[in-house]
This record gives sequence, C-alpha cells and structure tokens, in this order.
Amino acid sequence: MSHFGKLYLLPVPISDEQEQNYLPEYNIRVVQGLKKFIAEDAKIARRFLKRFGYKTLDEAEISLLNQHTEKNEIPGFLSFLKQGLDMGLMSDAGCPGIADPGAEVVKLAHQAGIEVVPLVGPSSIVLSIMASGFNGQNFAFIGYLPIEKGPKAKRIKELEQLALKHDQAQFFIETPYRNEQLFELLLEQLSPQSKLFIGKDICSPNQSLLAKTVAQWKTGIKPAMHKIPVVFGIYKE
Amino acid sequence: MSHFGKLYLLPVPISDEQEQNYLPEYNIRVVQGLKKFIAEDAKIARRFLKRFGYKTLDEAEISLLNQHTEKNEIPGFLSFLKQGLDMGLMSDAGCPGIADPGAEVVKLAHQAGIEVVPLVGPSSIVLSIMASGFNGQNFAFIGYLPIEKGPKAKRIKELEQLALKHDQAQFFIETPYRNEQLFELLLEQLSPQSKLFIGKDICSPNQSLLAKTVAQWKTGIKPAMHKIPVVFGIYKE
Repeated sequence: MSHFGKLYLLPVPISDEQEQNYLPEYNIRVVQGLKKFIAEDAKIARRFLKRFGYKTLDEAEISLLNQHTEKNEIPGFLSFLKQGLDMGLMSDAGCPGIADPGAEVVKLAHQAGIEVVPLVGPSSIVLSIMASGFNGQNFAFIGYLPIEKGPKAKRIKELEQLALKHDQAQFFIETPYRNEQLFELLLEQLSPQSKLFIGKDICSPNQSLLAKTVAQWKTGIKPAMHKIPVVFGIYKE
Repeated sequence: MSHFGKLYLLPVPISDEQEQNYLPEYNIRVVQGLKKFIAEDAKIARRFLKRFGYKTLDEAEISLLNQHTEKNEIPGFLSFLKQGLDMGLMSDAGCPGIADPGAEVVKLAHQAGIEVVPLVGPSSIVLSIMASGFNGQNFAFIGYLPIEKGPKAKRIKELEQLALKHDQAQFFIETPYRNEQLFELLLEQLSPQSKLFIGKDICSPNQSLLAKTVAQWKTGIKPAMHKIPVVFGIYKE
C-alpha cells in the first residue's frame, strides 16, 4: 500500500467571486505538489489551477470524469496512483463525492488499497444543512427529484412524511432552469406549517439562505431563482 | 432586518494538530471582528479564539449552549443580534448545525429575520461522506444508533435495508468508548457483501478513512478505535 500515491479530494470554489474566502491555504499547497488530476471539465479545472497560482499548468495532466466517461475507462485513472504518483480529484464546484461523479473513482481507490485524503472546502449542500436550523442530528441529501410533475409532487409528499416520521431533514437540488417550477410545486404540495429552506447562490456576494414555513413563503415576495443554483430543504417538527 | 447583526456559523478544527490546515484564512478575519459568541464549552471556545490569534479575549462574551442549557434561555442569546451586533456560533469541533446543538439557535435566528452566514470548515461527517466512495447523490446522516444491543442490531439491519432499497448511503456516529462494540455488532449483523466505511481520527495525523466489504473487515486486522472519534457508514450496491 505504501508505495502507492494518494488520491486527494480537492474542493473547488462554488463561485468565482471571493473564492479565496472558501479554501484553506493548505489546499493550495497540496495542489502545487500535484501533476495528475481527475476533473469533470478540463477548462474549469485549468482555470481553478491557474487562479490558485498553480505554477506548472503545462505539465498538468487532466483525466476527464463526467457523463461521457465510460465506466470501463475509470480503472485506468488509477494507474498513476499505482505508479506511486499522487492525484487530485476535483469537481466543477464544491466537494468531490458530494453530488458529483467523483464517488466512482474513490470506490475503486479503496478497492485498490489507495489512500484517500479528503480536503476541507465549500459545499453548497453542507453549508445549507448548517444554515437551515433543521435537524443537524438527522438529515438526508437525496439529489434530484423526478422530472415529471406527477412523480415530483408525489416525491415531495414522501419527503415531507419522511421529515415528520423520522425527524429527518430532507435536502435536494434541481436543474437551475427548473427551480421556479419546483418552488411553486413545493408551496402547492407541502402543508403550511412545514418548513422550507432555500439556499440561493451560496458563496457568492448575493447568497441568501432562508428557512421559513410554507405559509410564510406563500405570503412573501417570491424569491427570484431562475437559472441560479439553489439547495432546497424540507423539515417538519 | 438590515439593522440586525449577522449570526456567523464558525467551524472549529476537529484536532489540535495541523489545525491551520483546515480553516480558510477568511474565517480568522471574521472571528477577529466578533465580540459575542455562542459555544458548547467556554474553555474550548477560548482556546480556539486564542490559537487563532483573537486579540481581545478579555472582551469576548461567550453564551453557553449545551445539554445544560434550558430551552427558554436560547431566545435570550439573540438579544445581541437584535441590537445590531454580529455573533459567532461555534461547536466544540466541526461545523455548527451538523451533529451539534447549534441548530436550535439557527432556527430562532431565521424566525427573527436574522441573517445566518455559514463559514466553510472541517466536519468529520462531511469528510467521511466525500471519502467513502459511497453514493454522493444520496446519503443520510442519522446521528447515534440506539444504546441497547437489541434495538441497535435491529437499527443496523434497517440501515442496510435503506441503503439497498433507496440506494442511500447511511452514516452515523457512536460514543467513542462504545466504538469497538458497535464495530463487532456491525460485522455480525451486516451481510458480507455490504460495504462498511470507518473514518477514524479525521483531521489528525493518524487519520484513517477506509471503505471495505464486511467480508474484508472480518478477515483483516481489527482497527483500534476505542475512545477514538469514528464516523461509520453503510452502503450496499
């Protein structure tokens, strides 16, 4: 095991603005020492490396892991690690392995006996859980709801029941251009006393993290969220 | 709303060693500007402030939020915020609102229309989710299992079923002196092909984050974990 390289999980700032506020200095030092990376998008990865003062960008080798990557290509990503070289796994924004495709590589690394080293950084999901004031002892992130309206409405009802029955706060995301539709459906389907968390544009200067009852959201001004990254949460006490 | 102070959620390093590796520089700047804090333990909070170069420790006022705090004391914590002063909410280690008592204060802040600002920092639970290689699109943190052996065994079986049925990775913690008991019970109750993640002493120089099948854990050397902080995870594909 000890002759293998380490797989570093490198969080990437969520927003371009104030990005230096969201990463420990230590991460930058780790990144400087790496030559091999796995990333969702090469352009985004190179921009990240450049912005954080990575000095040998021409030598950086970036393997792509995204929806176009075949499952049988992934084991090949580990060859550098097996040769003793450290690698950095990045997502486009946020923490690798949380709502991104990184988990598959991490799984194979564990199977191969490669050390996995997660670094601290921003995750809009984690910041939402913290800022919701919901149940920090019991929460779930369930990714995306179904796309079709009928199954989506049904899932919302299920999540409300889970929140109530198991005292478990439920967090989820939506494709940004469908946010406003989802928000309307949430107000329609949830009971007025249920709490709804909306975390908008997290880690940008416009960030807004609010938890209100559905009744309060209904009477207030509708928050603009079209094409803006949002984390949603449901809780019921 | 704008005349109120902001409630900053301040992550605290998990381990005393290498602690500067786990916080963005920005957090230190925010802490310097605060005079009022809410913390689980005054001594731990003061040590944190001191270590991070907080300059006016004599003037810092720390309100205690822990198992001895009466629920009716908590609204009083917000009085400084309502007077327009910013406050910092800290847990003993990790991120406020994640497996700590901070959520109650955050809830009241939302109710009062106070802005909640979560800062980036280490959480052993989040680092475990990242490093597990389990399902980053669907995971739950469920806090502690029941203490009694019978209900605990039953809960383990339930979690394995949840993992399989909903493809949802299940993370949980234990009081550190009961870790080895829980580990034995997990090996006994889970099916051999289920995956078990053990995240030990995270953010310390001894950290170990491993995901293996139950069959592999059974044949390997038992990891020492008595009185060591551990995050557990179950997943089944």
